[in-house]
Amino acid sequence: MRKKLFCLALLVLVGASVFAQEGIESLGFSLDMVWLFIGAILVFIMQAGFALVETGLTRAKNATNITMKNVMDFCFGAIVYWALGWGFMYGTDALGGLIGTDQFFNGPMSLDFDSGNFYKSWFFQVVFAATAATIVSGAMAERTQFKSYLIYTCFISAFIYPISGHWVWGGGWLANLGFHDFAGSTVVHSVGGWAALMGAIVLGPRIGKYVKGPDGKISVKAVPGHNIPYAALGVLLLFFGWFGFNGASTGIATVGEGGIWSGLAIARVCVTTTLAAAAGAVSALFFSWSWFKKPDASMTLNGLLAGLVSITAPCAVVSPGASIIIGLIGGVLVVLSVEFIDKILKVDDPVGASSVHLTCGIWGTLAVGIWGNVEGVALGLLHGGGLRQLGIQLVGILSVGAWAALTSLALFVTIKAITGLRVSPKEESIGLDLAEHKAEAYSGFQIFSNM
Amino acid sequence: MRKKLFCLALLVLVGASVFAQEGIESLGFSLDMVWLFIGAILVFIMQAGFALVETGLTRAKNATNITMKNVMDFCFGAIVYWALGWGFMYGTDALGGLIGTDQFFNGPMSLDFDSGNFYKSWFFQVVFAATAATIVSGAMAERTQFKSYLIYTCFISAFIYPISGHWVWGGGWLANLGFHDFAGSTVVHSVGGWAALMGAIVLGPRIGKYVKGPDGKISVKAVPGHNIPYAALGVLLLFFGWFGFNGASTGIATVGEGGIWSGLAIARVCVTTTLAAAAGAVSALFFSWSWFKKPDASMTLNGLLAGLVSITAPCAVVSPGASIIIGLIGGVLVVLSVEFIDKILKVDDPVGASSVHLTCGIWGTLAVGIWGNVEGVALGLLHGGGLRQLGIQLVGILSVGAWAALTSLALFVTIKAITGLRVSPKEESIGLDLAEHKAEAYSGFQIFSNM
Amino acid sequence: MRKKLFCLALLVLVGASVFAQEGIESLGFSLDMVWLFIGAILVFIMQAGFALVETGLTRAKNATNITMKNVMDFCFGAIVYWALGWGFMYGTDALGGLIGTDQFFNGPMSLDFDSGNFYKSWFFQVVFAATAATIVSGAMAERTQFKSYLIYTCFISAFIYPISGHWVWGGGWLANLGFHDFAGSTVVHSVGGWAALMGAIVLGPRIGKYVKGPDGKISVKAVPGHNIPYAALGVLLLFFGWFGFNGASTGIATVGEGGIWSGLAIARVCVTTTLAAAAGAVSALFFSWSWFKKPDASMTLNGLLAGLVSITAPCAVVSPGASIIIGLIGGVLVVLSVEFIDKILKVDDPVGASSVHLTCGIWGTLAVGIWGNVEGVALGLLHGGGLRQLGIQLVGILSVGAWAALTSLALFVTIKAITGLRVSPKEESIGLDLAEHKAEAYSGFQIFSNM
Repeated sequence: MRKKLFCLALLVLVGASVFAQEGIESLGFSLDMVWLFIGAILVFIMQAGFALVETGLTRAKNATNITMKNVMDFCFGAIVYWALGWGFMYGTDALGGLIGTDQFFNGPMSLDFDSGNFYKSWFFQVVFAATAATIVSGAMAERTQFKSYLIYTCFISAFIYPISGHWVWGGGWLANLGFHDFAGSTVVHSVGGWAALMGAIVLGPRIGKYVKGPDGKISVKAVPGHNIPYAALGVLLLFFGWFGFNGASTGIATVGEGGIWSGLAIARVCVTTTLAAAAGAVSALFFSWSWFKKPDASMTLNGLLAGLVSITAPCAVVSPGASIIIGLIGGVLVVLSVEFIDKILKVDDPVGASSVHLTCGIWGTLAVGIWGNVEGVALGLLHGGGLRQLGIQLVGILSVGAWAALTSLALFVTIKAITGLRVSPKEESIGLDLAEHKAEAYSGFQIFSNM
Repeated sequence: MRKKLFCLALLVLVGASVFAQEGIESLGFSLDMVWLFIGAILVFIMQAGFALVETGLTRAKNATNITMKNVMDFCFGAIVYWALGWGFMYGTDALGGLIGTDQFFNGPMSLDFDSGNFYKSWFFQVVFAATAATIVSGAMAERTQFKSYLIYTCFISAFIYPISGHWVWGGGWLANLGFHDFAGSTVVHSVGGWAALMGAIVLGPRIGKYVKGPDGKISVKAVPGHNIPYAALGVLLLFFGWFGFNGASTGIATVGEGGIWSGLAIARVCVTTTLAAAAGAVSALFFSWSWFKKPDASMTLNGLLAGLVSITAPCAVVSPGASIIIGLIGGVLVVLSVEFIDKILKVDDPVGASSVHLTCGIWGTLAVGIWGNVEGVALGLLHGGGLRQLGIQLVGILSVGAWAALTSLALFVTIKAITGLRVSPKEESIGLDLAEHKAEAYSGFQIFSNM
Repeated sequence: MRKKLFCLALLVLVGASVFAQEGIESLGFSLDMVWLFIGAILVFIMQAGFALVETGLTRAKNATNITMKNVMDFCFGAIVYWALGWGFMYGTDALGGLIGTDQFFNGPMSLDFDSGNFYKSWFFQVVFAATAATIVSGAMAERTQFKSYLIYTCFISAFIYPISGHWVWGGGWLANLGFHDFAGSTVVHSVGGWAALMGAIVLGPRIGKYVKGPDGKISVKAVPGHNIPYAALGVLLLFFGWFGFNGASTGIATVGEGGIWSGLAIARVCVTTTLAAAAGAVSALFFSWSWFKKPDASMTLNGLLAGLVSITAPCAVVSPGASIIIGLIGGVLVVLSVEFIDKILKVDDPVGASSVHLTCGIWGTLAVGIWGNVEGVALGLLHGGGLRQLGIQLVGILSVGAWAALTSLALFVTIKAITGLRVSPKEESIGLDLAEHKAEAYSGFQIFSNM
């Protein structure tokens, strides 16, 4: 009798123990999900940040147009990333790590997360896709047809971004090689930056940007933005959202899950992200101040973004001190890159998008190979890893870069040939707001926004 | 001796097991609370979204006034919702599900959540009440007295919104009937939309909006907004906050709580909310583009909001595919509704608030009865539920609509009779900023903001 | 045999029980961390709030300058708070609670949270330091050299704020005395407010602000801000971020941790913060309306901030009803203080920063000693605590005030003597945007922004 009671008691305790274990796992799952979704919501608001930066740094006569482009690239992007992009990026792998092949037009009613991770991950992924897509609008601002913009943004979100994304984050060949890009210096920013640069090249400069003088020399004119507070607010919203971008790229908030990441990595990511962004702004300020003899607002704001883009790949694997160095160099690079693209290449990128996202995206990806300090993830040159990780990072930069540059070049050339990419000179002169949208952005205000 | 040891060991283990179970429940409670409060904080920032949309889509001479109204309806609303509204909505039910009757001027010092759920829920509820209230200001913009505005916004937050809210979310008669409105297409948006429409009717149109020509025909003039980037930023902030509005309406983040909702529903809500909003913007863009021969900014932005309002009721019970259809239809409806109210009804709603919140609020509530797909919550027409749920949804739409329309009509008529509702024609012409607040919104800028 | 099985079963169960307990503790740790970091991210966006309020309430010709100052004080502040400030505030105590003495240039690669709490807490702390620093820019707007601004903001973040912060939050002498300042009415806001007031005094008023008439009487001119919607958006962003500022100052989200705070305190904090802010706006509106015969926008917006600053110290220890009273009084005080500093003291604080942050910071700190209602934390005059807590609060106000006022006075006087603090009258007249940054904030817009 007593033995039976013991047995019963043991059974109940075993049951309670299993129940407790399940409860703990379930809670851990929920907490990870909450962190991921809050991160995604923060990344979402970066759309407003991009819209404001691009609006603020361009002219008032195109303000409706550029904000509309930023809003609509998210809307079109969300639908095509649901229909196609998600499948190319996270569908079952084919061709040895090159492309995903199923989960298109995903529509599970079941919330059973084991049956596939669409519900758990799609929302976090779509805001990253939208970030890559929206980078392009700044470089092509003030002269691109609205219709053509909608076409190419769909291709970027449905096809260009997801496929190289599959290589790195979808379990593709670069992931297998050991390429480390924590939150997307290459996967997101460089891809957007390459498309931005190609777009600006295919489009050609804005009227009046490069003027040939009677002596045959080309003078480069600055086209000042129409609202610096918009640009500053945009940069602060981007900074704000970036804590989700980098911070929630851990994928989890719980500790000791057994994977390479622990929720504790969030703490490091927040510290390195803050410091690198700050350092980027500080170095861009001082560098541009000493060069141009003025504390330049748009250079400094781009310096802050440069710091953020630079730390995006290495944020989880470097020390606070390294993050400051990475940011400082990023801030100098962005100033050099803006001047190089504008004055030497004579490519007209109105907001410096290709310098911020491409140049610093490359820099940040390389930085993993220099300061990476986490055994089993990325050991850089300065932490006993030799040139191995740096080499792998270079392979990733070159392969993703080749993919993004060539496909986006082909895309822009094709659109230019078929529907046209650019508005007419008259429309450009009037401004895209009146020419395309038949409405001013600032009705009632007296504005002289031609150069 | 050994048996006593066994007994002791068993007792300790039972204790540990109970302790573990309590720890798990306590953590689940905390996680749910954190999610709910983050959701509420996100909903709060929708106040800034509304303020910017309404400011951007109206004239510069009324910009201080409309922003002040948006800030103050939250401030007055919070106090009266604490004093009265909460009690009417969540106090002990009376009259068979019609009204709550206690918990006015709630002031517990005890944080014991069992003694009542005021502390747990008030913050999440007050931001919803403020959303319903702030919708009205847009429809009545540019001609309503500031003083009268403060009076009626108090009545909406203290009385009109809480009572129909009690019917659905306070355990009242519509809840018992099986009416499903997950996050408030009807409870919040339609109530605000009805009040907005009634207010615009009682006020009458702005001077110069409808002009009778010499032939007796009335011509309808467009009054362009003064800052489209404000409107776009506002829409993006609303979208951002809406993830809290819909996402945290699960009330919980934990999984398998035994209730009808699980934290997993958050995942579906984020997907359907994103897709419906995107679809609404896309369809409004194309529909207005083909109709008006231009990609209209304000119609498209309202289309995005239309998608959000439409998915608010069904977001937790429909598939991703259905959410796109619901959004697409919402985007078309808002364009038709804006044109109908403006051109046919000749009611002057400067920002299209009644079209966005009332028309699409009704549409979204009906959509539950069509695409609802969750057994035991809502099965719609297309998922084997027949016309039952659709019928119940219609009862909710009509009863809440009748309540909101009649009480707000009575409210506006009464205020008009007693203190007056509208500024004088001279004040309207000068602009409410100078006339009421004795200060320009944009001191120093050259502005010609009369039509 | 059977006994051995029993023993084995018991051992397994003990192991599972320990494992469960560890799992629960680990989850609790993660949840607390997530809440703290989300809070910090919310506090971060207050930088955008301050930037917009200060930009909106000053003139268009200084808009680039003031936004740049707000962006850069965070960037410089983050780096110096990492290098020095953190160590002074949270390093090992010396001199009997006066100063921290280690953890400078902190760079742990280890994420082991037991080895020190740098990673866990730095991010939350740096955004508080940045808040104190950024308050100053508003009071010194429109006439301070950019270079000098960068110098003094570094001193505030590295030295002035951390040392008095150590007294209260770093385990220093005021903490030991029982001084209660939950989220920083004194530690953050008064410190920033004192520096703001000293800065405005040392700088002197803007040209044309106080004009001596032929009769020798000084007339005080109002200098209207150039963008009220910016100011309103800024206030709403501050309100939004304040839920992180006050809400996450619990440090935890879990319940029943054994400390004096429980996650449940978050619920009370959100309620009291909402109500006090609302009450501050309402009372400032009515008080200024009755005094100046107009519902003044900037006074009302400052009233909302006054409510927020006032509730920052007592938010966790007072009832909802008390929070309304505290806010109402804060809203009246800010109007009186603005008028007193402007008209009687004739100190030119363009945005009222010292009234909002210093006057109401003092008021909120005292309110703890009046309405404090939590046994073992703070019992105020009205809850049986007698004058004890009120006296301790007064000691904290006076000692922190003396520290902040004297060190910032010394700082500004020193900078004035060495590098100069103020721009030339010609630069001030042109505006700091053109004079210092060589670029307009609103290129193309017609602006007449001299008084």
